[in-house]
Amino acid sequence: MGILPFVAELGLIDHHCHGVLRTDSARPEFESLLLEADAVSPLGGSFFDSAVGFAVRRWCAPLLDLPRHASADEYLERRNSLHIAEVSRTFLMASGIHTFLVDGGFQPDRLLSAAELAGLGGGVAHEIVRLEVLAETLRPSVSPSEFVDLVRSRLASSSAVGAKSVAAYRIGLGLPGVRPADAEVERAVAAWSSGRLEDPVVITWLAWEALDAGLPLQFHVGYGDSDLDLHQCDPSLLTPFLRATAALGVPVLLLHNYPFHRQAGYLAQVFPHVFCDLGLATHGLGHQASRVFAEALEIVPYGKFLFSSDAFALPELYYLGAMLFRRALSDFLADGLRSDAFVEDDAHRIARLIASENASRVYKL
Amino acid sequence: MGILPFVAELGLIDHHCHGVLRTDSARPEFESLLLEADAVSPLGGSFFDSAVGFAVRRWCAPLLDLPRHASADEYLERRNSLHIAEVSRTFLMASGIHTFLVDGGFQPDRLLSAAELAGLGGGVAHEIVRLEVLAETLRPSVSPSEFVDLVRSRLASSSAVGAKSVAAYRIGLGLPGVRPADAEVERAVAAWSSGRLEDPVVITWLAWEALDAGLPLQFHVGYGDSDLDLHQCDPSLLTPFLRATAALGVPVLLLHNYPFHRQAGYLAQVFPHVFCDLGLATHGLGHQASRVFAEALEIVPYGKFLFSSDAFALPELYYLGAMLFRRALSDFLADGLRSDAFVEDDAHRIARLIASENASRVYKL
Amino acid sequence: MGILPFVAELGLIDHHCHGVLRTDSARPEFESLLLEADAVSPLGGSFFDSAVGFAVRRWCAPLLDLPRHASADEYLERRNSLHIAEVSRTFLMASGIHTFLVDGGFQPDRLLSAAELAGLGGGVAHEIVRLEVLAETLRPSVSPSEFVDLVRSRLASSSAVGAKSVAAYRIGLGLPGVRPADAEVERAVAAWSSGRLEDPVVITWLAWEALDAGLPLQFHVGYGDSDLDLHQCDPSLLTPFLRATAALGVPVLLLHNYPFHRQAGYLAQVFPHVFCDLGLATHGLGHQASRVFAEALEIVPYGKFLFSSDAFALPELYYLGAMLFRRALSDFLADGLRSDAFVEDDAHRIARLIASENASRVYKL
Repeated sequence: MGILPFVAELGLIDHHCHGVLRTDSARPEFESLLLEADAVSPLGGSFFDSAVGFAVRRWCAPLLDLPRHASADEYLERRNSLHIAEVSRTFLMASGIHTFLVDGGFQPDRLLSAAELAGLGGGVAHEIVRLEVLAETLRPSVSPSEFVDLVRSRLASSSAVGAKSVAAYRIGLGLPGVRPADAEVERAVAAWSSGRLEDPVVITWLAWEALDAGLPLQFHVGYGDSDLDLHQCDPSLLTPFLRATAALGVPVLLLHNYPFHRQAGYLAQVFPHVFCDLGLATHGLGHQASRVFAEALEIVPYGKFLFSSDAFALPELYYLGAMLFRRALSDFLADGLRSDAFVEDDAHRIARLIASENASRVYKL
Repeated sequence: MGILPFVAELGLIDHHCHGVLRTDSARPEFESLLLEADAVSPLGGSFFDSAVGFAVRRWCAPLLDLPRHASADEYLERRNSLHIAEVSRTFLMASGIHTFLVDGGFQPDRLLSAAELAGLGGGVAHEIVRLEVLAETLRPSVSPSEFVDLVRSRLASSSAVGAKSVAAYRIGLGLPGVRPADAEVERAVAAWSSGRLEDPVVITWLAWEALDAGLPLQFHVGYGDSDLDLHQCDPSLLTPFLRATAALGVPVLLLHNYPFHRQAGYLAQVFPHVFCDLGLATHGLGHQASRVFAEALEIVPYGKFLFSSDAFALPELYYLGAMLFRRALSDFLADGLRSDAFVEDDAHRIARLIASENASRVYKL
Repeated sequence: MGILPFVAELGLIDHHCHGVLRTDSARPEFESLLLEADAVSPLGGSFFDSAVGFAVRRWCAPLLDLPRHASADEYLERRNSLHIAEVSRTFLMASGIHTFLVDGGFQPDRLLSAAELAGLGGGVAHEIVRLEVLAETLRPSVSPSEFVDLVRSRLASSSAVGAKSVAAYRIGLGLPGVRPADAEVERAVAAWSSGRLEDPVVITWLAWEALDAGLPLQFHVGYGDSDLDLHQCDPSLLTPFLRATAALGVPVLLLHNYPFHRQAGYLAQVFPHVFCDLGLATHGLGHQASRVFAEALEIVPYGKFLFSSDAFALPELYYLGAMLFRRALSDFLADGLRSDAFVEDDAHRIARLIASENASRVYKL
C-alpha cells in the first residue's frame, strides 16, 4: 500500500486552504483544532483517539524526529520545543504543495497571511475573497445603494483568483434559482446595518456578483463545525442556483461535501460549470480516507475533481491533507490498474488532472 | 476477479431499458450520451476521462476487434466504419439479455422500437408505458372528464407489462399518501390543457391508475440528468404513497436509486410490494460498480432486487450494464462464499432471483 | 478474517436492547422478526434469503448443534424442539454481553422482563424508560397540570439509567431548538386525552425533561419499521435540539443511524454531549456489517461510539449483534494495524472504549 511513485512526485495546487497559527498550541487548543468541535469534552475523551489524531502520531511525529506513533504528550512537547515557524515550514515543505489558494477570511489576526504561508512553504499564494466577510467589512460605512456599488467594484477589481461563499453556515444551500433584483438587494441591505450577515437575499446576491465578476465561486458544502445544520448543506439544494448560473460559464466549486460527496459528483457531472473536491474530509478521515475518496470519484468526470486540504491553523493539516490525498489517489489508481480498468498513461493523466491541471484551468493560474 | 461461471452464464431480464439510436454518433454526441450531462463542457474536459468512458475503451473496444484500451478516437473511428445495426447487434448479443422491458417514451423518433431492439438482440421485448407521455399524448384531443376515462381505459387495456412514472423529474417524489378524488383530478386536468405535464395531482393520479390497472409501477429515483433536483428524488419521500398503496398488492419498482440505494433497500425490505435496482448506476460507475452494488444489497431481501441496464441510445450501455452487473453480482457472491456467509446452492439461488426470477414474478412474464 | 483474540474476549455492555419472546415462533413469525417488515410478502419470497437470514443459518445453527448453513426448516424444527428458555440462554450466554440496558416499552406482555433477561444471560440489567410509553400510561388518569408534575417526578425518581425517545416514529427528528414552556405543554396535553402520543410539543418536552432529570437520552434514528418516514429520521434534523441542549451536559445517544451513520458521526464529533452506535444495522447487515461499521467510525472520536444489539424478541439477534459487532470491530482494528495507522496498545484502548468503557462513562454504570 505504498504510494505510486508518479503520485508521490506530483506537485499540488491546494485550491482551498487557510493560514496557520502564529503561535504554539497547548494540548486543549491543539486537540480542538484537529476536529470540527469547539472543544474537547470530558464526556467523550481525547481527540487524539480519532482518525486524525492517530494520523498525527503516525505521520507527523517522524517529521519532528520522533518515532512513529509517539504519544500525544511526547508529540506536543517536542512540537512546542521548536519554533512554530520551523514546525510550519517542515510540514508545509513536506506537503509538496506549490500553489496555495488561501481563504484568509476566518480569524485573520491569529494566522499567517497568504504571502507568509507561501514563503514558509516555498510556493506561491493567491487570495480567495470570502464574500460574507467582504460584505460585513464594507457595510458599516456606506449606505445600501453605495454598498451594492462598492461590493461590485471591489469584486471587479479584486486581485483574488476566486471567491468563497459560506452560505452553508448562514442560510443553508437552498439558494433560489433567480437573481435578486438590485432594489430587493438594497432593501435587504438596509434592513441589515452591521454585524453577522445572515440575510438570504444579500448572500445570494453576493454569489451572483462573484460570478458576474468572473470569479470562480467556492461553496462550503457538508461537514463543518457545529454552526451548520448538516441537512441544509446537501449540495443538491444548490440545484436551482446551479441551473440558473450554468450559462454564465464561470466555475462553481463544491468544497468538502462529505457525507454528500456522491451528490457533489452528480452535480459536477451534469452541470458544465460545477467542480468538487473532498477537502476537509481527507485529513479528517485519516487512514480511512481512501475509501471515501474512491466514492467521491464514482461518477464525477476526472476533469471535474480537485485537490484541497482545507488546512486551518495547524500546519500538520497541510501535510496530512496532501499525504492522505496522495495515498487515496494512489490507491484509486493502483486499484484501477490492477483490475485493468485503465492503463498507465491514463492513470498519469487522471493524476495530473486532479493534482493540479483542473485547478490551473478553473482558476486560470 | 473473474466472473463466477454460473453468473457469466445467467440469462438476464432487463426490466428497465430504452431503445438505441438508429444512426452513428460523432464524438460530441457519443460523449454526452455516456453520461447524464447535456453536453461536454470545455471547462471540464472529455467524458472519456470518466468511469464509463474508461469502461467503453476497456470492455467495448475488443468487441469491435480493437485492442483493450483503444483510444477514444480509434474507438469511434472503428465504430463509425461499421453499420450501426451491426454495432448494436454485437453489443446486444454480448449482453446476454433475453428479455427487454422497454420504456419507449423518451425520444422515440431517434430510437429503435422495442420490437426492433429485441430483433437485434435475439430476445423478446415487452413494453413499459410511460405515464406522463401517455397523458401528454391524450390530453389535447379530449375534455377533462373524457381524459380521465380515456387514460383509465387505455391502462386497463394496455399490452404493456408495467408502467413508469417520471414524477422525480416533474414534481419530485413527495407524492401524497391519499388518492386524488376524480373531481380534483378533473379540475387539475382542466387547468392543464396541453404540453409538459407538471401538475402534482395529475401525476399522482396516474400512478394510482396504473396500480389499479394491475400494472407494476416503476419510479425513476435518484441519479438522472440535470432536469431533476436530487434531494427531491430520495425514494424515502415516497413513503406515504407506498404506505397507502401496499394493500393493493401491485409491485412498485424503484429504479437506479443512487446515491439513495440504501434508502431504497430499506423501503424494499419494509413494504411488501416494493422492489429496487441499481439501474443506471451500474454502467455509470464502471470499475467501481461492485462496491455500490454490494451496498445496495445490504438490507434488501434478495427476492426484492432486480437487474436493469437503463441503457439509452448507445448499445454499448446494454453490454456494459449487463457485464458490470455480472461482475458486481459475482464479486458479491464470491465474497460471501469466501467468508462462508452462505454456500454454493444459496449463491446460485440468489443469482437466479436477481438476474431474472424476481422480474418474472413481478411482471408475470 | 478471524476475530482478534482481544476483541473476542471483550465483555460487552449492550446499551440498547429489548426483551426476548416467552414462546416459540412458527416460521412466519420468525421470518418477520428477522427484519423490520410486518410480514413476509408472497411477492418477495422468504426473508431467510437476506443478509440476516443467512447469518442465522451460518452462525446460529451450530449453537443448536446443527451444521453450519442448516436449512431454514431444519433450523426452526431443531429450535422448536428445545425449550425456548434454553434457546434464549444459549444465545445470550454466547453473546458475551455482561450488562443489558433494556428498553421494555414495546410489547412487554410478549417478552421477558429485563431481570429475566439478565438472569438467562448471566449478566446484570438496567432499565431504560421509554418516554412516550410513560406519558401514554400516565395521561388517562390525571389532569394536564398534574400530568406535567407527575412525569417530572417519575423521571426524577426513576431507577432507570437512561431514557429513550421514539420521536422518529411519531413526529420525525426535527425537534425545535427551544424548550416548550409549561403552559404550552399543558395546552398540548389537554388536547391529547389518551391513546398514541403524536403531539410534537409533548414529545419535545419529554426529551427536555429527561435531560433535566439527568437521564442520558437515546433517540431512535434512521432504519426501523414501516411506521417511520426515513427522511424524517436523519439525525442532522436534531441539530437545533442538540445545539440547545449541549450546555446541560447530559449525554444524548443516537441509535442505529443507518443509512445516516456518517451524519451521526459528524454530530458526535461536533457536539460534546452526543454519542452514537450502529445498533440494528449490525445484525441487519449480516456478513456486510464490517464495511458499514468502518464507515460509522470515519469521523467519530472513538470515545463517542458505543455497542448495542437492538435485539428484540429473537435471542439469536443478541448473539448475531454481538458476534457481528466483534467481527466488524476486529476487521476495523486489524485493518488499522495492518496499515500501521495505530499500534497494538491503541487498538486495545479503542476496543475497550467502544465495547464497554464509553457506555460505563455515559450511563455512570
